[in-house]
Amino acid sequence: MERTRIVQLYADIEQLGDTVVTVAGWVRSIRDMKNFGFVTLNDGSCFKDLQVVMNRGALGNYDEIAAMGVGSALVCTGTLALTPDRPQPFELQASSIVIEGASAPDYPMQKKRQTREFLRTQQHLRSRTNLFRAIFRVRSVAAAAIHSFFQERGFVYVNTPIITTSDAEGAGEMFRVTTLDVANPPLLEDGSVDWSQDFFGQAANLTVSGQLQAENFALSFGDVYTFGPTFRAENSNTRRHAAEFWMVEPEMAFCDLAGDMDCAEAMLKYVIGSVMDACPDEMAFFNKFVDKDLVERLTHVVTSDFARVSYTEAIKILQEAVDSGHDFEYPVDWGCDLQTEHERYLTEEHFGKPTFVTDYPAKIKAFYMRLNDDKKTVAAADCLVPGIGEIIGGSQREERLDVLERRITELGMSIDQYRTYLDLRRYGGCQHAGFGLGFERLVMYLTGVDNIRDVLPHPRTVGSADF
Amino acid sequence: MERTRIVQLYADIEQLGDTVVTVAGWVRSIRDMKNFGFVTLNDGSCFKDLQVVMNRGALGNYDEIAAMGVGSALVCTGTLALTPDRPQPFELQASSIVIEGASAPDYPMQKKRQTREFLRTQQHLRSRTNLFRAIFRVRSVAAAAIHSFFQERGFVYVNTPIITTSDAEGAGEMFRVTTLDVANPPLLEDGSVDWSQDFFGQAANLTVSGQLQAENFALSFGDVYTFGPTFRAENSNTRRHAAEFWMVEPEMAFCDLAGDMDCAEAMLKYVIGSVMDACPDEMAFFNKFVDKDLVERLTHVVTSDFARVSYTEAIKILQEAVDSGHDFEYPVDWGCDLQTEHERYLTEEHFGKPTFVTDYPAKIKAFYMRLNDDKKTVAAADCLVPGIGEIIGGSQREERLDVLERRITELGMSIDQYRTYLDLRRYGGCQHAGFGLGFERLVMYLTGVDNIRDVLPHPRTVGSADF
Repeated sequence: MERTRIVQLYADIEQLGDTVVTVAGWVRSIRDMKNFGFVTLNDGSCFKDLQVVMNRGALGNYDEIAAMGVGSALVCTGTLALTPDRPQPFELQASSIVIEGASAPDYPMQKKRQTREFLRTQQHLRSRTNLFRAIFRVRSVAAAAIHSFFQERGFVYVNTPIITTSDAEGAGEMFRVTTLDVANPPLLEDGSVDWSQDFFGQAANLTVSGQLQAENFALSFGDVYTFGPTFRAENSNTRRHAAEFWMVEPEMAFCDLAGDMDCAEAMLKYVIGSVMDACPDEMAFFNKFVDKDLVERLTHVVTSDFARVSYTEAIKILQEAVDSGHDFEYPVDWGCDLQTEHERYLTEEHFGKPTFVTDYPAKIKAFYMRLNDDKKTVAAADCLVPGIGEIIGGSQREERLDVLERRITELGMSIDQYRTYLDLRRYGGCQHAGFGLGFERLVMYLTGVDNIRDVLPHPRTVGSADF
Repeated sequence: MERTRIVQLYADIEQLGDTVVTVAGWVRSIRDMKNFGFVTLNDGSCFKDLQVVMNRGALGNYDEIAAMGVGSALVCTGTLALTPDRPQPFELQASSIVIEGASAPDYPMQKKRQTREFLRTQQHLRSRTNLFRAIFRVRSVAAAAIHSFFQERGFVYVNTPIITTSDAEGAGEMFRVTTLDVANPPLLEDGSVDWSQDFFGQAANLTVSGQLQAENFALSFGDVYTFGPTFRAENSNTRRHAAEFWMVEPEMAFCDLAGDMDCAEAMLKYVIGSVMDACPDEMAFFNKFVDKDLVERLTHVVTSDFARVSYTEAIKILQEAVDSGHDFEYPVDWGCDLQTEHERYLTEEHFGKPTFVTDYPAKIKAFYMRLNDDKKTVAAADCLVPGIGEIIGGSQREERLDVLERRITELGMSIDQYRTYLDLRRYGGCQHAGFGLGFERLVMYLTGVDNIRDVLPHPRTVGSADF
């Protein structure tokens, strides 16, 4: 079928006069005025609809079309006419409308406003609504922008494995992956499972991070990034947690913490700029119906330098806030992990822009982060953004073999399990750094949508993996 | 650290004269001539190395550098000098070389040729060899080209879920995902596992395909694609099977089988062209050391139309080959599934180019493929390529609710399990089509490398999930 996408009509608007085109899409509404009527059609190629004018005189099947339900698939052929006096710039005067697929009367996506909770039960249909059409296009454009950003800079895209036999950084509870018969697993004498009989010959899990494997490639390619799904089996039923989510993890050789933050800041600005350029209609929709400050906030982020403050200074700022009467639920002391309320105070109220907090206490950060000269803090940098809190967690990695071995031992971890990771420090190690961006948090930030379940096509959360 | 990538030096070769630059990378070899010497340095930014000239007079640490092992990380500063009379176009005359990280003498990636089997035991280091540096850059460039191809055409990238509670198309054995204690799972009275106590409240698996979910989005956005990991728990220990691999799955509304093949052909040509443009050194390397016909074959693919032949015709061609004395291991009869030997005969010997075989018997294809008017065959199209066999499997999807319900029932599957999939046919269904590309098979095709374990950064296969 030779069809023209609606997005193309809007792009070619100058040359449209009197062209005959065929457009295929889904009915958003039909108004029947007896001898003529209007079909609002969307084909998903852009946020905008096309108005199709139908005349009883021109269409043999006028009554049939006029009776079509919302959601029906139609193929409309006709002449485009510019309509400078109407809200839409042009309309299609139909010479033929063919019913490709009718929509049953119990179609759940009727014109009336539906709650997002209800729409979560209709994940196979919800991307036909304005809200979800906008969210998932922005998600796609943001993902493409991430690839463009890194590819333009010569980074190599590495698909780190999803199934892993290490527990990575101990970053969270993991899902077990197995082909054993769980009802009757083979057991050893001590009653534990005999994982040697499992598919991989040992116990396997879903990855919580591709970082350690990305380092393998950073130390040969220099600059690499991952972009793939990661998993946490945490029993966290919040608006910000999903069991399955996508992460972007760049890793750069010959790079320190300052270079790491430069890269993260440039990436965020690039992605925000790309989305605002490519999705003006979607962004205007979010700004009108989801978050009235969204476009102003994002514009501000793109045009301003991010703040950078050490953890130690940040604690002072928070303590001064407490002294000035600000009420935090969690206490603020040097050594504590920053809670979301602290992060949001720093980025929203104190700095009023995205903020890197650097040099956290070693005790609250992962083993691989580079120990600073004060021996108390590590070269970590978390990026906090207004409305979300932490969106990026990064660090310079410990490149000194002896320091890293000591750290692993101190934490009671097994040197042997990290043999290949330590090899990278044995054979031409170098200073290097990287960060992790939770992609869904970025999409929430870009859209103003406050529940992670609404930015994932088919979210997986505690107790829920339908569709 | 302000460093210049080697790729940038080659790009700016015209303007190089007498510039002072700092280059950081890893030693591939060192030749010490007593008062001067050469370091061959690679920083991973491109396939090419940089020759660094060191003079005893200019370097206080000449002897130390001269004694460095292969793989050591060095930071070299100096003046670039064009060398029109030497094999390399320029060299760096070092004024300073700083040791960033030495390489221990037992470095496993010494200059001598290593077998690929040995290198599979060194997955954290093998991307420092020419072969794997070339493979993983081509993989990255090909992945970026896939995103560009679809994004330029307005396709929406959809991240379909990895964890699923459906068994999709019954496409293969699946991995179980669980947080239950496998040693002591909760059991029901009949001895089966009580999956309601598992993380998602039901039994969950790793996906074998994102197609069914991609259809949800094709019927709102029109054109969508997935690109993510998929899994098969098959006990297949072959050169072409991995338990975890990446798939590209476009899905297009208002598209029939011919449009589907047009898209697949254009995509393959686009990706091949992008890789040949972006990776000339890598492709020359493969052509010299891996497959002497590679570049000629790929050039031929980009410039010729793919053959299209029906399954029924293909069977005749194969039977004629048998009659002419060609020896196949498996018999050829209408109704049989094509084996790799048949596929390769068709694409390599008979057509001599990529070949779509269409309209397979319904019995050997999946339930969702559109039944042809002959009621025996379905609108499927597999793309076969020389050297590999099947690289793409596609079909027009059954959009007729009654036909699809009948097919599901005939196959003893549960109508109820496919309720949302059937909804797509109830509410504005339309003809649509899509295909799946096994990304690793594409990388094998692009590089000439014949083992899937060598095109995955860290392959997962039966009995093996190290690194």
